[in-house]
Amino acid sequence: MPRAVRERQMMDAAVRTFGRRGYRAASMDEIAELAGVSKPLVYLYLHSKEELFTACIRREAEALLTAVERAVEPELPADRQLWAGLTAFFAHAAEHPDAWSVLHRQARTHGEPFALEVAAMRGHIVAFVAGLLEAAAREAGSPGPPGERDVEGLAQALVGAAESLAAWVNESEGESGGAVSAKEAAATLMNFAWVGLGDLIKGERWSPR
Amino acid sequence: MPRAVRERQMMDAAVRTFGRRGYRAASMDEIAELAGVSKPLVYLYLHSKEELFTACIRREAEALLTAVERAVEPELPADRQLWAGLTAFFAHAAEHPDAWSVLHRQARTHGEPFALEVAAMRGHIVAFVAGLLEAAAREAGSPGPPGERDVEGLAQALVGAAESLAAWVNESEGESGGAVSAKEAAATLMNFAWVGLGDLIKGERWSPR
Repeated sequence: MPRAVRERQMMDAAVRTFGRRGYRAASMDEIAELAGVSKPLVYLYLHSKEELFTACIRREAEALLTAVERAVEPELPADRQLWAGLTAFFAHAAEHPDAWSVLHRQARTHGEPFALEVAAMRGHIVAFVAGLLEAAAREAGSPGPPGERDVEGLAQALVGAAESLAAWVNESEGESGGAVSAKEAAATLMNFAWVGLGDLIKGERWSPR
Repeated sequence: MPRAVRERQMMDAAVRTFGRRGYRAASMDEIAELAGVSKPLVYLYLHSKEELFTACIRREAEALLTAVERAVEPELPADRQLWAGLTAFFAHAAEHPDAWSVLHRQARTHGEPFALEVAAMRGHIVAFVAGLLEAAAREAGSPGPPGERDVEGLAQALVGAAESLAAWVNESEGESGGAVSAKEAAATLMNFAWVGLGDLIKGERWSPR
């Protein structure tokens, strides 16, 4: 079996184990067993638990970013672009709960080096959202286009809102009202971010045209 | 000196040390010295580093919650209530950077028990915001008042956006463009959350009436 395939199997097993057990409790024995390889082979290919975890964070961060960026078609109107991006984000988080746990919980709670890996991905998403907002404001011929700092602030707000909702969705599983779906979460955030509370409170809603 | 006063001095010193050095690196020696007491007295009153840290998290969570709740006057229109709450939140975070670091960074990155303390406070804030939104929708005689789950989702989005912005503001200090002020951050979030990106992009802005 080629090395790349073996490595992918090891990382699949690692994401699953880190995501479910947590970084500390996860053992290299368990990861090797789940991947169907020997423990020495895991060390040979991925060196240490720290490096394996770092590789997992990078791979899953990349996958999440790619899912969002691919979903957004720049020729669509701004609200449709945002809707597509949000839908892709929540769908990806829901379909890959172990990866989400690695990125959102484990990587942030086990020391600075791992946290910095996630912060780098977050920076890319914020920049992507900021670019989208700038392009939208230009297209709308906004009389007072938002300043660079305003745009970054808005992008930070949107990304923070999305993270918070995704965490809430993942925790809502098994609750009495049933899980919140990725689609519901995307719709809630789209209404919040696009329509705004002022109009939402009066009963307005965003809907795809 | 009464015990309550001594304890407050110890906790002031602890918040400052945990906030600046981080939970792990902070030493009980340093905390005792900064508080101007002996180390045995810190242990006598607050038992262990874990319990001292937990006491700090609780005190600072309570202080942040109180600052927000006190600022919001229920007889004001909903947007003014939100504006007052956001302004108080960002001002409190800016004026107490060590406390913010304890709550937002340290408590979340050093194990489940501490993280749960912060999660409890976060739950209170989300419930408070949800109550505000529900009251506002009722007052507006909204034709389709948002369901309980929608309201919680919106509150989660708003709280996540506020956390993200507050972290960004605290990190922006010392950057070339100068620090983002608490007032600017509150205005950015008010525009985002109240007006919505759809109208913001067209150049609309919220302003206090």
